[in-house]
Amino acid sequence: MFAKETYVQRRALLKKQIGSGILLFLGNDDCGLNYEDNAFRYRQDSTFLYYFGISAPGLSAIIDVSEDKEIIFGDELSIDAIVWMGAQPTLREKCERVGISEVIPAADITSYLHRYTSKGKSVHYLPPYRPEHKLKLMDWLGIAPAQQAGSVPFIRAIVAQRNYKSAEEIVEIEKACNVTADMHIAAMKVLRPGMYEYEVVAEMNRVAESNNCQLSFPTIATINGQTLHNHYYGNQVKPGDLFLIDAGAEVESGYAGDMSSTLPADKTFTARQREIYEIQNAMHLESVKALRPGIPYMDVYDLSARVMVEGLKAVGLMKGNAEDAVREGAHALFYPHGLGHMMGLDVHDMENFGEVWVGYNGQPKSTQFGRKSQRLAIPLEPGFVHTVEPGIYFIPQLIDKWRSEKNFTDFICYDKVETYKDFGGIRNEEDYLITETGSRRLGKKIPLTPDEVEALR
Amino acid sequence: MFAKETYVQRRALLKKQIGSGILLFLGNDDCGLNYEDNAFRYRQDSTFLYYFGISAPGLSAIIDVSEDKEIIFGDELSIDAIVWMGAQPTLREKCERVGISEVIPAADITSYLHRYTSKGKSVHYLPPYRPEHKLKLMDWLGIAPAQQAGSVPFIRAIVAQRNYKSAEEIVEIEKACNVTADMHIAAMKVLRPGMYEYEVVAEMNRVAESNNCQLSFPTIATINGQTLHNHYYGNQVKPGDLFLIDAGAEVESGYAGDMSSTLPADKTFTARQREIYEIQNAMHLESVKALRPGIPYMDVYDLSARVMVEGLKAVGLMKGNAEDAVREGAHALFYPHGLGHMMGLDVHDMENFGEVWVGYNGQPKSTQFGRKSQRLAIPLEPGFVHTVEPGIYFIPQLIDKWRSEKNFTDFICYDKVETYKDFGGIRNEEDYLITETGSRRLGKKIPLTPDEVEALR
Repeated sequence: MFAKETYVQRRALLKKQIGSGILLFLGNDDCGLNYEDNAFRYRQDSTFLYYFGISAPGLSAIIDVSEDKEIIFGDELSIDAIVWMGAQPTLREKCERVGISEVIPAADITSYLHRYTSKGKSVHYLPPYRPEHKLKLMDWLGIAPAQQAGSVPFIRAIVAQRNYKSAEEIVEIEKACNVTADMHIAAMKVLRPGMYEYEVVAEMNRVAESNNCQLSFPTIATINGQTLHNHYYGNQVKPGDLFLIDAGAEVESGYAGDMSSTLPADKTFTARQREIYEIQNAMHLESVKALRPGIPYMDVYDLSARVMVEGLKAVGLMKGNAEDAVREGAHALFYPHGLGHMMGLDVHDMENFGEVWVGYNGQPKSTQFGRKSQRLAIPLEPGFVHTVEPGIYFIPQLIDKWRSEKNFTDFICYDKVETYKDFGGIRNEEDYLITETGSRRLGKKIPLTPDEVEALR
Repeated sequence: MFAKETYVQRRALLKKQIGSGILLFLGNDDCGLNYEDNAFRYRQDSTFLYYFGISAPGLSAIIDVSEDKEIIFGDELSIDAIVWMGAQPTLREKCERVGISEVIPAADITSYLHRYTSKGKSVHYLPPYRPEHKLKLMDWLGIAPAQQAGSVPFIRAIVAQRNYKSAEEIVEIEKACNVTADMHIAAMKVLRPGMYEYEVVAEMNRVAESNNCQLSFPTIATINGQTLHNHYYGNQVKPGDLFLIDAGAEVESGYAGDMSSTLPADKTFTARQREIYEIQNAMHLESVKALRPGIPYMDVYDLSARVMVEGLKAVGLMKGNAEDAVREGAHALFYPHGLGHMMGLDVHDMENFGEVWVGYNGQPKSTQFGRKSQRLAIPLEPGFVHTVEPGIYFIPQLIDKWRSEKNFTDFICYDKVETYKDFGGIRNEEDYLITETGSRRLGKKIPLTPDEVEALR
């Protein structure tokens, strides 16, 4: 929660960017696990948080740019609710703290919006990502869920603002990054063969929660690092395993941290693990070195992939010209995801708008396997905050698929690759701010080199 | 996850109970915090879990009772998804494990249901509690959200089954209760003045998660125990505070535990705290003593309230005839909630159907303040699992309201009550199974008497 002036200025800039029209902001409601009153932790919509700063269910807002009106729709607590929930600021007080003086009962939004739609005026809204948004847009604007595309000018105006983090936002992100680093360091200290993955998760969550943080996304903590989308924690850690962690904290203001690390179940890496880790580490360090205003992040992705190909060639897992391999997409067998993504109030910042608006300035994404998972391609600019997270994986299902399809046999040494199918995966991830002259890591350092990792084991 | 036969038998009994018709079961989907792919932990709908045992998003099921058909609608993972998510059982395999052999692509459910609705056959469905359910019922059955009332015969048939816990369910609930007890015991050991509430929460969550459990509901851990609906953890604990905890674990199979405890921030209770605590403890012990098949749980609630009134009379906070006070509702100033609720796959079991169907056998609830919050009123039966959780609170807003309204001045000694407005609240809660002859506490014992609590401080 920032000072009133922050929110007033953010809205003023938005109004200036978009010029005219009616802007509708949908807040998030509670979501019940298994019945309505048993809710997941409450998370406000990030755009609502950015412009209105109030983290509470049941709210919507309208900015009428042409008339210069800013209204929050929501209801005050009843006396019965106050008896149950304790004394707290009224909605009107919360609104005044963010510079909004007009507060209207929630039920009145339909007729309020009808004033515009009945005159044929269109209302800008954002693409819905929760079913409750779809129901509201249907009820309030009469738009069927399948037709709820969202407004591109509205998206563009918000992205043009939220992509550039202010000094006070950086402070919040750095708080999240510091707690995130502590979560990783705690895990590195406790992991031992024989533990279950969920015990490591429990330790990391304890660190987050004892710092009054939530998780910014579901933790990955696994002996199967090669499984990229993995939220299962039921495996027992065995000697010889590699353990991959991708986890981040979210501070009270909503800002996220996001880091990854990879460590041996034992006190040290095996020679084979260290060899691949050194390649991944070179990808990471070369990428970080390249960060500066003006460089397209897709170029840094290409760089990281070329560094990997050269490294894997030296080990005998790849062959041929590295530049050709990366251009054609052969690297993606081992590195099927992107190098990083914008980070802010969302760990993948503004992913709810669609990635092309945030990371591609509206241009289409590549359809090439691997490259299509790069979430950020545009030239970096001062104020951008993004992750750097190259990885190397040996995914048995993907190896089998590509081998059977005879994919890139000029670049991939399948016989050797076959012997790595039990290897797992390695990823390290840090968060960076692009500055006027280069970049700055956000949050305290987590162990990155094999030696640094082993020093904590 | 139980053996196949369990699910087959549960469905067989349901079909027998309901006799005929088409039953539609909506599974739960993922819910995105701030964009679609950043989801809260996945929680399957409990009724879906009970009859189909599969905890995964994107599923629905139909039982055609008359035709004796059982079908799950859902999609197999694509090869791309398997590359990302790792090898795992196919949907068909998962369905076979619970005795379902017919698996149909998710998209086909609309036309499948249309076969029934086009012939004027009605489809039984349950009241929706998530917005995604509302969208599906609208799309699939053409019923507008405001008209989605749910089917009473369907609800009644399920309640008649799920109210009685089987031996294998009791095993799961007891696992959840044991972890729940450990969470409370851990909190009792770590709490010290100067800590923040969230630090206690972090320690309890660590216990849950290191036992591969989730939370069955959002933890209450507060120095403001008088605030009943309280999920804020930002206060620092001061010497002299009472600390109230209400928290429970959910085991992998989905079953819940739910316990409460109250402890002093210091090593011992003050004389005033102990005096009120002893009254609450008597309410608890007398209630537990009364548990047996045949006794209406509303009678036990009345008993607990009378015990409290007698106790508060002795302290000079109440006066008059205890039976009259409870009948008229004067006790509810201090005890505004119920004595307990059914517990099973949901911490408030089947609350999504509406409480009258679970705890009142369809009869209307009282509208009296306090009494209306009693969730379970019907005579107890062997196999019921429910909580026992009396409490005594001093809620400043409620005291002010009642005093200004001159409520129950024959029963309440407002001048004395006024001096307790900084007291807070006390609740203890345990989970009980009704047996053939009486009751059995589920899970290990947590400290209940003031002496037992102090022994852990």
